[in-house]
Amino acid sequence: MLRSFASKISRISLAGSRSFSNAPDKLVVAEVDDKTGYATVTLNRPPVNSLNLELLTAISETLDDLQNNKSRGVILTSSSKTVFSAGLDIMEMYKPKPERLKAFWSTLQDVWFKLYGSPYPTVAAINGHAPAGGCLLSLCCEYRIMCPNYTIGLNETQLGIVAPSWFQAAMRNTISRRDAELALTLGTLFSTDEALKVGLIDEIASNKEEALAKAVGFLDRFKKVSAQARSMTKQALRSKDIMELEDNRSQDIDLFVYAVTQPKVQQSLELYLAALKKKSAK
Amino acid sequence: MLRSFASKISRISLAGSRSFSNAPDKLVVAEVDDKTGYATVTLNRPPVNSLNLELLTAISETLDDLQNNKSRGVILTSSSKTVFSAGLDIMEMYKPKPERLKAFWSTLQDVWFKLYGSPYPTVAAINGHAPAGGCLLSLCCEYRIMCPNYTIGLNETQLGIVAPSWFQAAMRNTISRRDAELALTLGTLFSTDEALKVGLIDEIASNKEEALAKAVGFLDRFKKVSAQARSMTKQALRSKDIMELEDNRSQDIDLFVYAVTQPKVQQSLELYLAALKKKSAK
Amino acid sequence: MLRSFASKISRISLAGSRSFSNAPDKLVVAEVDDKTGYATVTLNRPPVNSLNLELLTAISETLDDLQNNKSRGVILTSSSKTVFSAGLDIMEMYKPKPERLKAFWSTLQDVWFKLYGSPYPTVAAINGHAPAGGCLLSLCCEYRIMCPNYTIGLNETQLGIVAPSWFQAAMRNTISRRDAELALTLGTLFSTDEALKVGLIDEIASNKEEALAKAVGFLDRFKKVSAQARSMTKQALRSKDIMELEDNRSQDIDLFVYAVTQPKVQQSLELYLAALKKKSAK
Repeated sequence: MLRSFASKISRISLAGSRSFSNAPDKLVVAEVDDKTGYATVTLNRPPVNSLNLELLTAISETLDDLQNNKSRGVILTSSSKTVFSAGLDIMEMYKPKPERLKAFWSTLQDVWFKLYGSPYPTVAAINGHAPAGGCLLSLCCEYRIMCPNYTIGLNETQLGIVAPSWFQAAMRNTISRRDAELALTLGTLFSTDEALKVGLIDEIASNKEEALAKAVGFLDRFKKVSAQARSMTKQALRSKDIMELEDNRSQDIDLFVYAVTQPKVQQSLELYLAALKKKSAK
Repeated sequence: MLRSFASKISRISLAGSRSFSNAPDKLVVAEVDDKTGYATVTLNRPPVNSLNLELLTAISETLDDLQNNKSRGVILTSSSKTVFSAGLDIMEMYKPKPERLKAFWSTLQDVWFKLYGSPYPTVAAINGHAPAGGCLLSLCCEYRIMCPNYTIGLNETQLGIVAPSWFQAAMRNTISRRDAELALTLGTLFSTDEALKVGLIDEIASNKEEALAKAVGFLDRFKKVSAQARSMTKQALRSKDIMELEDNRSQDIDLFVYAVTQPKVQQSLELYLAALKKKSAK
Repeated sequence: MLRSFASKISRISLAGSRSFSNAPDKLVVAEVDDKTGYATVTLNRPPVNSLNLELLTAISETLDDLQNNKSRGVILTSSSKTVFSAGLDIMEMYKPKPERLKAFWSTLQDVWFKLYGSPYPTVAAINGHAPAGGCLLSLCCEYRIMCPNYTIGLNETQLGIVAPSWFQAAMRNTISRRDAELALTLGTLFSTDEALKVGLIDEIASNKEEALAKAVGFLDRFKKVSAQARSMTKQALRSKDIMELEDNRSQDIDLFVYAVTQPKVQQSLELYLAALKKKSAK
C-alpha cells in the first residue's frame, strides 16, 4: 500500500521508520507508513513552529502532494517537545512588505482550504501547546488527540486581535455554539483536561507515541468506508464554511493588510517585540 | 374527537382498536385513535419495509390525508418484528427505467417535505433496525423512541454512497454538529444505547407496546399548546433546510439519476444482488 | 474609571452606592460602579416589568447611553422581588392604535439589536420569573445567572402565539438546536434547575445579591481581553442573526401588525383581559 511522491520543500520519507532527526533542515517532514498508507506530517520549524510564509508554504505544498497521491489519511504533529505550533509568526506582521504580507495571508487561507476541506481523513496529534494559529491547524483536522498539561484555544482577543470568521467557523464546527461564543470572546486557553470536557479535543494521550497510535486508531475506523463517499460527505458538511471564505478571499486579505498596517497596531507590535527581546536577553 | 378520511393506497381505520392483521395487503396502515385523535402509521411492506416507489407513494399519500384532516399527531412505526425500515429498495436503482427512477427520488423528496415539515407533531416508534433511509424517516419526526438491541444510523458511506444534504440536514437538526460529522463520515450504525447517548433517539422502550405508549405521552405534551402556533414555530425552525431542498429539487434528482446510472455503480449493484441471491439460496 | 452620562428617561447614577429607592419614578435605573465601570440596569415598571412602549423606549435609550459612553459591561436585572420581566404588555396589543403598535414592535426590535449586538459584555441577573419577552431579554445577554424557584422560557406557543425568528435565533444561540426545537414547539417554561441543565442559564445564585456578585465575576473575566477585539468577535459571531432581522425589519413589523389586528386575536385578548379583571376583583 506504499505510495511515493515528492515535494519541493517538504521531505517525503518512503520508509515509515525513518526518524525525523535525519531531516533537520526541512520545515515540514511527511512520512508515509508502508503498511497503512497513512502520512505523518510533522511541523519542524524550531523552536515553536511559528507559522511564517515559508512554513505555511511547506504545509500547503505537502497537502497538495498528499492529495495528488490520494492519501489514505494524515496525522499532523510537531517535532517540538513542548509546542504543537505557537501560531502565526508576528515577524510577518511587523513592518511588513505589502506583497509578502498578502502572500502570507493568502497562503494561510490555502492551508485552511486544503486541510479543512481535504478529501482524506485528518487527525491532529497535539503534542504541545496550540494557541491561536496552532489551535486553528488542529481544528481543521477531523479529530484531535492531545497530550496532558498543555494549552489550546483561539486566544486572539487576549492578544488584542480578532479571529477571522473562518477561524471561528472551524471552532463552531467542533464545539457547541454556546461554548464557541464564550471561548472566542474570552479568548480562552483551555488546559488539556478542559479541552476534552468542552469537546475541543476528542481524546487525551499520555505522550506523543500514544497520541500517534491513537491517531492511527482513528484513521483505521475508516477502513470499511468508501473513500470517495467519505470525502464527498465531509465536503458537503463543510461546504458552507468553505464557500463563505471562497466568496470573500480577496476582501479578507485586504482587511487583514489594512488592520496590520495601522500605525497603532505597528506600535503595539514594536512594544511587544521589544519586551520579548528584553526578556530573552536576561 | 374522531376524524375520518380516506386514502387511495393506505387503509385508514376509523376505529382505534382495529388490528393491523386485518389489512395485510396495504403498504401503509393508518389508524386514528377515537379519543386522542392521534394517528398510528404503520409501514407494512414485508419483510423489511424496503422503501420502493409504491411504499413511498403510500407514505406520501397517507401524510396528505393526515394533513388534510388536521391530524393532532402521528406515530410512525413498523409491522415487522425486527426492522423499522431497511432503507431505500436497491431494486429501484438496479437497471432502472429513467422515468421511474426520477419518480422514485421525487417521491422520497415528497415524503421528506411532508414529514420534516408537517404541521402536526410526529414521533417515531422505532421497533426494529433503522439503517440509512429507515433512519432518515425517524429523523424527520420530532421525537424518537426505540426498542433495545437494534441499530440506527445514516450509514451511507459504509455502503459506498453519499447521504444527500437533506438527509444530513435532518441529522444535524437532531444531534450536535460535531457528532453529526463523525457519524456521517464514518457511516456509524449506533446501537439503541449509543443512539440515546448521542441524542439520536430520545427514549428507550422495552418493546413496541411501551414505545407506542411513550409516543402517546410525547404527543400529549402538546395538549396545552396552540396547534397553529406550534406548527408555525416548527416550520420556522426547519424552514432553512426545507427551502434549501425546494430550491434544488430538480438538480438533486438529476444528480441522483446521474450517480445511479454510472456503469461502475450498476456493476456494484449487480455484484451486491448476486451475493444476496447466493446467500438466500443457501 | 468613572464615566458619567445622562439619559432622557432613565436616571443614571454616578455613585455606585446610590439605592434604587431614590428613583421610584424611573422605568429604567442605570447605575455605574465607580471602580469597575460596570453599569447595573434595573427594570423598574411595577408590578411585573411588562414591556410596554415606554419601558422599551427607556431600555433602548439607556443602551444608547451605555454604548456612547463605552460601557465596560452591563448587568440587567429587575426591581421586582419575584419577576424579572413578565414579557410584552398585552395592553399594547388590545385595540391598538396603528402607529403606536408599529412603534411598539419597532422599539422591541431596537432593544434586540442593541442588546444582542452590544459592543460591551452583558449579563442577566434573573431575580424572578422570565417568561416570553422576559426570557428574550436575558437571551440577548451573553451570560445568565438565575435565582432559584423561578421559571424561564419562550412559552409563546402555550399562549397561542409564535415567537418570531429573531426570538428563536437568540434561543438557538444559547442551547442546542435539538433542545431549542423541543422548547420552542412545546413552549416550555423551565424551572431554574431545568434551565441550568439544558444550558438556558449559566449559573444559579441563591439571591439577588449573589446574582449581582456573580455577574460582576463574569464581567471581570474580560479584564485581560481587548475591548475592541472582544466586541468585533462577538459581533462577527452574531452577525448572521442580526443581518437577518435587519433585512426583514419592515416585513416583520407588518407581519406583527397584521397578526395582532386579526378579529380572532382581538377576541382572545378581550376574553383574556376580562378573565384577568375578574381574577383581580376577587
